[in-house]
Amino acid sequence: MKALVFHGPNARQWEDKPQPVVEKPTDAVVRMTHTTICGTDLHILKGDVPTCEPGRTLGHEGVGIVESVGDGVSTLQPGDRVLISCITSCGRCDYCKQGMYSQCRDGGWILGHRIDGTQAEAVRIPHADNSLYKLPEGLEDEAAVMLSDILPTGHEIGALNGEVNLGDTVAIVGSGPIGLAALLTARFYSPARLIMIDPDENRLATAKALGATHTISADPVDRIMEMTDGEGVDCAMEAVGIPETFDTCQSIVKAGGHIANIGVHGTSVEFHLENLWIKNVTVRTGLVNTNTIPVLMRTLEAGGVDAKSLITHHFPLDDIEKAYDVFGDAANEKAIKMILTAA
Amino acid sequence: MKALVFHGPNARQWEDKPQPVVEKPTDAVVRMTHTTICGTDLHILKGDVPTCEPGRTLGHEGVGIVESVGDGVSTLQPGDRVLISCITSCGRCDYCKQGMYSQCRDGGWILGHRIDGTQAEAVRIPHADNSLYKLPEGLEDEAAVMLSDILPTGHEIGALNGEVNLGDTVAIVGSGPIGLAALLTARFYSPARLIMIDPDENRLATAKALGATHTISADPVDRIMEMTDGEGVDCAMEAVGIPETFDTCQSIVKAGGHIANIGVHGTSVEFHLENLWIKNVTVRTGLVNTNTIPVLMRTLEAGGVDAKSLITHHFPLDDIEKAYDVFGDAANEKAIKMILTAA
Repeated sequence: MKALVFHGPNARQWEDKPQPVVEKPTDAVVRMTHTTICGTDLHILKGDVPTCEPGRTLGHEGVGIVESVGDGVSTLQPGDRVLISCITSCGRCDYCKQGMYSQCRDGGWILGHRIDGTQAEAVRIPHADNSLYKLPEGLEDEAAVMLSDILPTGHEIGALNGEVNLGDTVAIVGSGPIGLAALLTARFYSPARLIMIDPDENRLATAKALGATHTISADPVDRIMEMTDGEGVDCAMEAVGIPETFDTCQSIVKAGGHIANIGVHGTSVEFHLENLWIKNVTVRTGLVNTNTIPVLMRTLEAGGVDAKSLITHHFPLDDIEKAYDVFGDAANEKAIKMILTAA
Repeated sequence: MKALVFHGPNARQWEDKPQPVVEKPTDAVVRMTHTTICGTDLHILKGDVPTCEPGRTLGHEGVGIVESVGDGVSTLQPGDRVLISCITSCGRCDYCKQGMYSQCRDGGWILGHRIDGTQAEAVRIPHADNSLYKLPEGLEDEAAVMLSDILPTGHEIGALNGEVNLGDTVAIVGSGPIGLAALLTARFYSPARLIMIDPDENRLATAKALGATHTISADPVDRIMEMTDGEGVDCAMEAVGIPETFDTCQSIVKAGGHIANIGVHGTSVEFHLENLWIKNVTVRTGLVNTNTIPVLMRTLEAGGVDAKSLITHHFPLDDIEKAYDVFGDAANEKAIKMILTAA
């Protein structure tokens, strides 16, 4: 079969690889029908994720059809149309028993990282009963792909970790794919104001189209303080992953407020405890648990959110290298999520 | 009357001041029977709290007898024996309505800071109905003084903010008064291990006597990792207020764990988001709300915690300057809380 293989920093190729097979009784092999590219894949290609070794097939998102299952798989069978969670979970360890699947002792984020991923014609999924979700008939493949990672991440690490509530003022720093997913899912909790902050006017226009009530392209701290009578916001979400944007969050959070860090950071940040110790703030970090995939799936099926609004580009799976080129220049290409469809 | 007055950095004096009077209908004037000294008073004397101006009577803890009340006070009358909360709260503003009295729009931590405090023969208490608590007969004055600040701070900003739970491994960095109060109150939630970290062996011996299961005087990160199979702790409490101790906390917190920052910080810290972004950690800061004074009061009355175990020294109120000298050299004097008793 063909797969998109990482060959070290800045090197990738769509090339032949052996077809995956069931290795353990709890595995399933899934033939991919749709996949996508995540900002994390670009981090890997930049060399930011040393735990991902050359030779690895990338990708941790997608939808497909179960081809074969191990003897220990009890809820799935060949032919089932399934969503692949970006998080693999055993369901049995101490972390899984708390719903913190991201930290699963025999899983977590391993797809396209420590084991071969979904940017291929087929993929082996460990702990298939816990890590795949049968898709209801009413939910299209393309919308469902947004449930692998981006929507649960926006929801859990943005809206829930940020404790977005009715009537809140929420600021999201970074109008990239994950910031937009945080925006879409924050809307479930009916904040009064949803402010998107990004230097790129195109990205802000997208945010506005997806429900941002206000957008800010420059001097975010001053602007937020003007808008809030100097109080700051109830919830600030960091959706970039650099010190400057974390700093914006800690400058705009109000007393009693929440900072939800969604960004993947490569360096430490200066944390202003000399101001924040007295402000009763909460800062949360995290990798998505995907424990809210089932509720999000019901919400998508019921039309509660237009997941496809995040999709900007379509390519045949065979053209994934071209899709990477476009996604790598996302700002110019106005790219959010790319859908790659297998032949 | 006499009061302990701040006269700028390193200057204080027990001197004459006018007797306080009811200024607003919601005020009460309380004749002090017992007060104490807090580490925060030492911070003010060092000049670390510029919002506290020279001329201010210090102190935000104590017990006394109501002398007079304004027309708007409905639950208290002269002669009532009351506990003074370190936090003054109007009970009406948006923050009070969330139970976040620390951020009250017309209160918060003002006693001995923005208005005259409790280290005096008498004190004016604004919003008396919300900021004073009638003491039950069964609760001694000296134990009750620990309810003004130190026990609710340990409880709310340590145990509750750190989400201490049954079976947890908890590490407290700093075995001073506030670390010990965090220790006493963390025990309510039955953690499996309560580890106290401090370079001072005397302070660790006190922690052990108050219920620490383990103590660490050097190389805390290595020691904690040995004790936890390299995992770290469920909850790390910072009870000092310097970058080094915050750093210990972020190095020992396990994936999914909590950092409760109790310390008062004068400078920023380096926050290792490059390690923590993926670890699903929660960091909380805060000034005590004192919203748990009522439940702590019932617990003290029922004998659920020996609050007097924190008291190491007694002085007549007139000798408060001597008490400051002793408390200022707390490590050598083995001082935790000083009780000052009015004649």
